[in-house]
Amino acid sequence: MCGGPKRVDRFPDIQDLESSLPPPAMEPLEIHKVSLPERKKTLPALKNGLGEVFFPDDPFYQYKNRSFLRKLVLAVQYFFPIFQWGSEYSLQLLKSDVISGLTIASLAIPQGISYAKLADLPPIIGLYSSFVPPLIYSVLGSSRDLAVGPVSIASLVMGSMLREVVSPEKEPVLYLQLAFTATFFAGVFQASLGFLRLGFIVDFLSRPTLIGFMGGAAIIVSLQQLKGLLGIEHFTTQMGFVPVMVSVFSHRTEWGWQTVLMGFSFLAFLLITRQIGMRRPKLFWVAAAAPLTSVILSTIFVFAFKAQNHGVKIIGHLQKGLNPPSANMLYFHGTHLGLAIKTGIVSGMLSLTEGLAVGRTFASLKSYQIDGNKEMMAIGIMNMAGSCTSCYVTTGSFSRSAVNYNAGSKTAVSNIVMASVVLITLLFLMPLFYYTPNVILSVIIITAVIGLIDLGAAVGLWKVDKLDFIACLTAFFGVLFISVQMGLAIAVGISTFKILIHVIRPNIAALGNVPGTHSYRDLEQYREAQRVPSFLILSIESPIYFANSMYLQERILRWVREEEERAGQMTESNIKCVILDLSAVTAVDTSGIGALLELHKTLQNRSMRLVLANPVAGVAEKLHLSQAWEKLGSESVFLRVSEAIDAVSYFLKSQQAQP
Amino acid sequence: MCGGPKRVDRFPDIQDLESSLPPPAMEPLEIHKVSLPERKKTLPALKNGLGEVFFPDDPFYQYKNRSFLRKLVLAVQYFFPIFQWGSEYSLQLLKSDVISGLTIASLAIPQGISYAKLADLPPIIGLYSSFVPPLIYSVLGSSRDLAVGPVSIASLVMGSMLREVVSPEKEPVLYLQLAFTATFFAGVFQASLGFLRLGFIVDFLSRPTLIGFMGGAAIIVSLQQLKGLLGIEHFTTQMGFVPVMVSVFSHRTEWGWQTVLMGFSFLAFLLITRQIGMRRPKLFWVAAAAPLTSVILSTIFVFAFKAQNHGVKIIGHLQKGLNPPSANMLYFHGTHLGLAIKTGIVSGMLSLTEGLAVGRTFASLKSYQIDGNKEMMAIGIMNMAGSCTSCYVTTGSFSRSAVNYNAGSKTAVSNIVMASVVLITLLFLMPLFYYTPNVILSVIIITAVIGLIDLGAAVGLWKVDKLDFIACLTAFFGVLFISVQMGLAIAVGISTFKILIHVIRPNIAALGNVPGTHSYRDLEQYREAQRVPSFLILSIESPIYFANSMYLQERILRWVREEEERAGQMTESNIKCVILDLSAVTAVDTSGIGALLELHKTLQNRSMRLVLANPVAGVAEKLHLSQAWEKLGSESVFLRVSEAIDAVSYFLKSQQAQP
Repeated sequence: MCGGPKRVDRFPDIQDLESSLPPPAMEPLEIHKVSLPERKKTLPALKNGLGEVFFPDDPFYQYKNRSFLRKLVLAVQYFFPIFQWGSEYSLQLLKSDVISGLTIASLAIPQGISYAKLADLPPIIGLYSSFVPPLIYSVLGSSRDLAVGPVSIASLVMGSMLREVVSPEKEPVLYLQLAFTATFFAGVFQASLGFLRLGFIVDFLSRPTLIGFMGGAAIIVSLQQLKGLLGIEHFTTQMGFVPVMVSVFSHRTEWGWQTVLMGFSFLAFLLITRQIGMRRPKLFWVAAAAPLTSVILSTIFVFAFKAQNHGVKIIGHLQKGLNPPSANMLYFHGTHLGLAIKTGIVSGMLSLTEGLAVGRTFASLKSYQIDGNKEMMAIGIMNMAGSCTSCYVTTGSFSRSAVNYNAGSKTAVSNIVMASVVLITLLFLMPLFYYTPNVILSVIIITAVIGLIDLGAAVGLWKVDKLDFIACLTAFFGVLFISVQMGLAIAVGISTFKILIHVIRPNIAALGNVPGTHSYRDLEQYREAQRVPSFLILSIESPIYFANSMYLQERILRWVREEEERAGQMTESNIKCVILDLSAVTAVDTSGIGALLELHKTLQNRSMRLVLANPVAGVAEKLHLSQAWEKLGSESVFLRVSEAIDAVSYFLKSQQAQP
Repeated sequence: MCGGPKRVDRFPDIQDLESSLPPPAMEPLEIHKVSLPERKKTLPALKNGLGEVFFPDDPFYQYKNRSFLRKLVLAVQYFFPIFQWGSEYSLQLLKSDVISGLTIASLAIPQGISYAKLADLPPIIGLYSSFVPPLIYSVLGSSRDLAVGPVSIASLVMGSMLREVVSPEKEPVLYLQLAFTATFFAGVFQASLGFLRLGFIVDFLSRPTLIGFMGGAAIIVSLQQLKGLLGIEHFTTQMGFVPVMVSVFSHRTEWGWQTVLMGFSFLAFLLITRQIGMRRPKLFWVAAAAPLTSVILSTIFVFAFKAQNHGVKIIGHLQKGLNPPSANMLYFHGTHLGLAIKTGIVSGMLSLTEGLAVGRTFASLKSYQIDGNKEMMAIGIMNMAGSCTSCYVTTGSFSRSAVNYNAGSKTAVSNIVMASVVLITLLFLMPLFYYTPNVILSVIIITAVIGLIDLGAAVGLWKVDKLDFIACLTAFFGVLFISVQMGLAIAVGISTFKILIHVIRPNIAALGNVPGTHSYRDLEQYREAQRVPSFLILSIESPIYFANSMYLQERILRWVREEEERAGQMTESNIKCVILDLSAVTAVDTSGIGALLELHKTLQNRSMRLVLANPVAGVAEKLHLSQAWEKLGSESVFLRVSEAIDAVSYFLKSQQAQP
């Protein structure tokens, strides 16, 4: 440690000046030295840096100064949160969890069957996926509100990516193998993101692009349901808006009025109950029970009127029994391995984003914390285990988790209750679904995904940030008119570009003095701020990097030119000194330092001084290490803009005093 | 305009407090209002924003208030800089340009032949490429020192990319077609970058990664020359370090001692003259004349001793005559079009980077400006024209431009002189190269590319910035052990990642008061700075975006926890207020605002206040538009940290004063 506060040095060069020159009639200068941060050795600095990148939450914090046994207990509780809340579990909590568990089960069964069809998988896979993964999550997961199971977006993406290469009708076994394999890789990807603490990758789907992406995906999913809703037999296998509409209207002869009538009646029923549930949170159970009610009613209807003989398509035979093991179906070699891995990563990324967002939203409502990296591992392990027990990609679902929360779930036990109901269904109730019409599944999907279209949020984006709105719109149209994967790629691309453009073309503000203070602020923002004659004070609002060093050099020279023109018109004196306020320059690299030196030289040739104010620790260190500080002159770096002005004015006046 | 300085308002909530409470014994508060920037309409704001992105240099500036004729003259001079300097050209300048032109011609002829061989093209293409492009550049280009012609890196990349798909031995015509087509697309790419004012894309090759990339490429190129240097017949077509070394040592029987002896003698000669040229800039002509001298000497030697009959391979017959037209050889359809476009873009990008860097370097040495976008168009048009006259990719070469500069070139006329010498060579001197041994071309290439390995710069990176050094090293090893394109991709990827990581994991500094000022600075940087009891003042050094909003929230809460622990150990009072200094937060998006509100809520639950200081214009505007300002409370945003502390202290004291 270098320890202790340092002496506040006077400005050395001015001191020399003072002794050699007659003191001009000015108040004494108050100049503070710009300090360097303590020099760290390479290894500790690297360790610290890596720690900040990968362990920002300091996960080992609670293990400090504990006994070995306590450490062990904490570690077990860390990896299996059930041991944390399990010990405090009570009958009271159980009651709440049973109610919410039953409620989400009534949603999960019809949705499970529907989403499996969305991914072109046998309907029973959707039920399998609502049994094993929720059980695993209840042991490993740290959210108390997440309702785990198949979800629409991930189902859609998996189906559309696999179908591009393998036909589910012609090669059903290969298709199923690839779906399980993709699920396995999704799990591996998710768990490794958590294990390698790379959770920030998920943050790259920014909210605006997600709003657009989900809205577009919801419409794509709904359009796919036109097949079931209209009873069309020969439907396109493409996902885009245009081919689907063409397919719908070119097969008008296949539309069955019985199917259409039934579909739209139940759609109206579900939408109305959904509205009721949204308007009155207390009546959430109306919306929650509606899908199962529709399934029961429509099944009875078909059975009673033998509607299957009148063009209404039904699910048909479903196998009874528990999840069969599927580890032997994983596909680790051959031509389609790349496809399985790609599909796994994309659907894994999407389901992880949904699961984390849902978990965080409800955690924030109930004021508890969720550890993102741990949650990723939980979801990942759940999917890896799922892929070996005939499940496809699962995560926490937006719609069912909201119902779970409203139904008063307290812990992950609600998932166990739900899984138990699914278990009973799998063991005993499967034959009851024989007469369930396909159209009802389409209707359930449409009602579920409609909630993903968030018009209000899009309007909010337009108001606050036009660029965010454009990003949202681009993702939306990308999904709708190009493809789901392309929409996702566009979303990530735009998000990244938004960060980059901020560095490539940073904002520069001219500063002026706020009357009555020593502060200098943006002249455009603070209209009371006043320019300082002979000075051009610029604040650069970005790191100075290779990506903008050339730009900044040219742009600053243009500022000088424009400012001189302005000063000329106002018959003010010429610019004598350019002060760069580096408060917002949070980093600098070798190209950036080069640019500053170059600028210094150019301004010097034009009899102007370049002075820097308030470099942050990292920048000060780089200026020192690269010897740019010396090259600029030690009298060129100041703590504050006001001190820079004082010192340079003093210098200019003492120069004038000389002959 | 809202005009005029605003009244400096007192802090409203505090005023209310003052009237209702007995004034505590404190100095009066001096609080300034945080202003919003003037509200801009969407369209003008968009226009302004786009203008800053695409026209930062305000290129139409000089056309303002000029007559039409003057505008026309300026426009012609803009597009054809030759009309700018041409009118002031004198005999004195011509003398300098002739000397430097002759000097670079003596380099350009052997290098042209050598580089064409590096790209697996007929040697004559290298000479063609040293004739037309320099002439075009001398009319369009704005650099006075650039020596135009084929360069090593672009030749290497073009050769290695095309050879992966098409064999230059088996399908020479197709290969040549693809080379011209790639050159055409390189030109189109370069010119469009300039025309669309997207020059910043070139800045994405940061200096550290370029140093690594060029070092790696230089070694790859040198290794390829082992074929010629050792006289090996059956050489690998791969570029990587490992296959080349394997190939060299598995064909030891093919090494010819005559070739090796000749090669190493001339290599020693060239390296020594190179050293002389570098040590004594006045003797630059020794280094510059050495390659041509080697060619002449070795050719005479082979001719005299009939060395071609003793295993020394010679160039053989070269066609006499000027560049034949090749527009009919461009290939705009068929299976290899994608390859040609890809090769064009990659080699175009690399040659543009080299040309711009060389141009800027020498412009800075002579203190004149180069317009990047215009230069891109010049280089692009030059390559498009080149592709129609049997030339492949050309740009300003590092090595020859340095010689040009040292030889005293004054204007682009030196390029015209060089082209004239190449013209004479093409017309009359081609038979003289019949006996030139291939080994001498290899030696010339090795000597030329050795200068691209910049160990000193790498050491400098290590000293100033470890991350830059790692980026450099990764690009180096990527080129050496994976492939040239991969090395380039890695280089761009790392450069981009470096910008992103700075936003994903931003720096946060705890601030303290610098004694004797109202300034608050990083406690780690300024060891004299003092903590303010009951306050935690954090400066966030990055925009608050989707990519870090989750991180910042968690990290700030960890700061609070750690600070409370520290305060507990020092028996100080607890943290009552967290002040976020937003001076370095240069932007915020909807996710970032969400994070601030979330943090506000969390801290409130723990009886702490969240207060913001000094939001820049953009951030203040977003806080206002999203109504976050209101939600945080109007008494939560201050102009300066010191004012925030005064106001909150006042509030806390007056709370204590109450029962």
